[in-house]
Amino acid sequence: MIPQGQRLEFSGELIVVEYMLHTSKKDSLSLAENICYEQTVEFPPDIVPPGDIQEKVVGKIISLEAVDASHHRALISFAVELTGFQFTQFLNVIFGNCSLFPGVRIAGLRLPDLFLDAFKGPRFGRSGLREALGVYGRPLLTTAIKPQGLSSKELAAETGQFARGGIDIIKDDHGLCDQPFSPFIERVNYCSEAVRRANSKTGFKTRYMPSLSGPADKVLDWAHKAKDAGAGGFLLSPGLVGWDMVRMIAEDDSLGLPIMCHPTFLGSFVTSPDNGISHSVIFGTLARLAGADLTVFPNYGGRFSFTREECRAIAHATEEPFGQHTAIFPAPGGGMTIERIPEIIKFYDGEVALLVGGGLHWGNTTLEKKCLALRSSLENR
Amino acid sequence: MIPQGQRLEFSGELIVVEYMLHTSKKDSLSLAENICYEQTVEFPPDIVPPGDIQEKVVGKIISLEAVDASHHRALISFAVELTGFQFTQFLNVIFGNCSLFPGVRIAGLRLPDLFLDAFKGPRFGRSGLREALGVYGRPLLTTAIKPQGLSSKELAAETGQFARGGIDIIKDDHGLCDQPFSPFIERVNYCSEAVRRANSKTGFKTRYMPSLSGPADKVLDWAHKAKDAGAGGFLLSPGLVGWDMVRMIAEDDSLGLPIMCHPTFLGSFVTSPDNGISHSVIFGTLARLAGADLTVFPNYGGRFSFTREECRAIAHATEEPFGQHTAIFPAPGGGMTIERIPEIIKFYDGEVALLVGGGLHWGNTTLEKKCLALRSSLENR
Repeated sequence: MIPQGQRLEFSGELIVVEYMLHTSKKDSLSLAENICYEQTVEFPPDIVPPGDIQEKVVGKIISLEAVDASHHRALISFAVELTGFQFTQFLNVIFGNCSLFPGVRIAGLRLPDLFLDAFKGPRFGRSGLREALGVYGRPLLTTAIKPQGLSSKELAAETGQFARGGIDIIKDDHGLCDQPFSPFIERVNYCSEAVRRANSKTGFKTRYMPSLSGPADKVLDWAHKAKDAGAGGFLLSPGLVGWDMVRMIAEDDSLGLPIMCHPTFLGSFVTSPDNGISHSVIFGTLARLAGADLTVFPNYGGRFSFTREECRAIAHATEEPFGQHTAIFPAPGGGMTIERIPEIIKFYDGEVALLVGGGLHWGNTTLEKKCLALRSSLENR
Repeated sequence: MIPQGQRLEFSGELIVVEYMLHTSKKDSLSLAENICYEQTVEFPPDIVPPGDIQEKVVGKIISLEAVDASHHRALISFAVELTGFQFTQFLNVIFGNCSLFPGVRIAGLRLPDLFLDAFKGPRFGRSGLREALGVYGRPLLTTAIKPQGLSSKELAAETGQFARGGIDIIKDDHGLCDQPFSPFIERVNYCSEAVRRANSKTGFKTRYMPSLSGPADKVLDWAHKAKDAGAGGFLLSPGLVGWDMVRMIAEDDSLGLPIMCHPTFLGSFVTSPDNGISHSVIFGTLARLAGADLTVFPNYGGRFSFTREECRAIAHATEEPFGQHTAIFPAPGGGMTIERIPEIIKFYDGEVALLVGGGLHWGNTTLEKKCLALRSSLENR
């Protein structure tokens, strides 16, 4: 435990951030030094009080090396205590004001166990989700109900088709919120009931995960109402509700349901190669730290522009050693077609939650039949 | 009122987003069309149901014009009902998944009164803050207590000096949260008491605004505890806690205190010229819609890299007509020195909250004397 209300005892444990600096050799050292001060004391260096503040609160450059003529890699460490062991302040330390410096990108993160242990992390993870869904030896099959504009009853009918078709996780499209055409509570009641009915017929363990990313003062209440209605998990968009709201819902034992993390409104962190936060840190590390059990991101080769390498790095971050925390599912989506599924399974080495959206709606067969065929093809691979 | 739980009656009121597309003429139309679908139905265009969904839910291109060979301006409209009149879903509609498209930047926003009326907006604004602080005919004078690592008592001593020196608003440095060296509740109690004592001596109406950007499940509780302790407002960082948390605190009548909005962790939205959201929209329009009374941003010519034009545009967004909502204070900061103050006052035409941070700490005079001299120089201009 961290002592409260007294002079800090520093543990010596450090968060190490790998910053990629888009700058010349000449300016690289001063930029790295600026980050050390800006992210901590936010004080002119020459008037920082000596002693603990200068020595332990100010960030420290561990190494600084050229990558090419205009890029330098800086490893900078911060005392873990600066975060207060809270997610918001952790983001503040690693990328608060320095997010406003052009040419600073977080390329990697090393988090000590003392910090990681302060978070519950993913409640289910890959193994817990497989058990909850009864799915072994094949990828998870997930989809979204859409388009917005349908009524709650129409969306529930679609949900029922997906559930009877054996989709493992049916989520709200991330654009479904609390619009007049399908208000949150109404939609969740109808769709949960549709899944319950389907499961009782099929014997499948399909789960419906509504999108919780509404008003800050409603998220927790909605979560409980959704659970009471029979929802089997939650879709949360940290770009909309903040990362710590994801953590709050994920860690709440009175809810105890799996979390799927959605990338909406987070694009600005990754679209510019020389600014922001790397794909693997934001969609892998941060999602996992917040307690997501599945992390949605745009797959390579779809209608977004993530590369194979970026997707590989995200997948790696979902399963690399991470303190006591379990591995989570990468859930690549974004214009995925049925034809690409074998290639995608191979790319993610089988440990993947396939997110098939609009692609399922093409053609003449019913949704239910298409889903059953897809599930069967996965089971018989 | 919007009818709940029944087929939507569309009002015909539209949110119009000005997107700057970094693309060739050849690709500009398909990118603009993709945005119309991606931000709404997220469905392949050829299978979107006809009728209301095709005609009213899918976004519509109002105009598309070349700016130069590689930039095109698209005005795209969305039915206001798609937002559910909620902040998170509003962000989702204007920049959710399309934030992940490279080369898409929000350059401007037009919000209809029907939408603006759904938000309380700034409670104080410029005129309300001037009245609360008793400051007329001069800029507001604001500063931050720092550096982190000081104890709550040390920070309170600093707060007392600033207050006796006649600073109008003393905020927590945005990096002060709930760290072991100055836990939130302890710090707020000490600092509020320091301001109360100073005000009773000086007759000034100085306000202390602690930073609320802690865990999602503590923000509201902290706000009430801070108010009970005598805090005179709140600093909130939407990048950390989410925009709607700012709105929630600002709109809460049981709190009823002014809000200062901080740009930490928001840099990725503005650092790349061809991605993200324009400075004026994020630091002006969004802050004002969320109900901030002051919006902090890095001033031109400081240690960040905002231009004069970008700062001018932010200032414009704080005061342009905005439904029923009042004008708010731009609070430029970031390495502001005392010497630059006359120039800055002129630039912002007097309607500005000067945020002087580390710069006050230089030199040999006491903080109190430096602040009094500064206040006096502003009053006698």
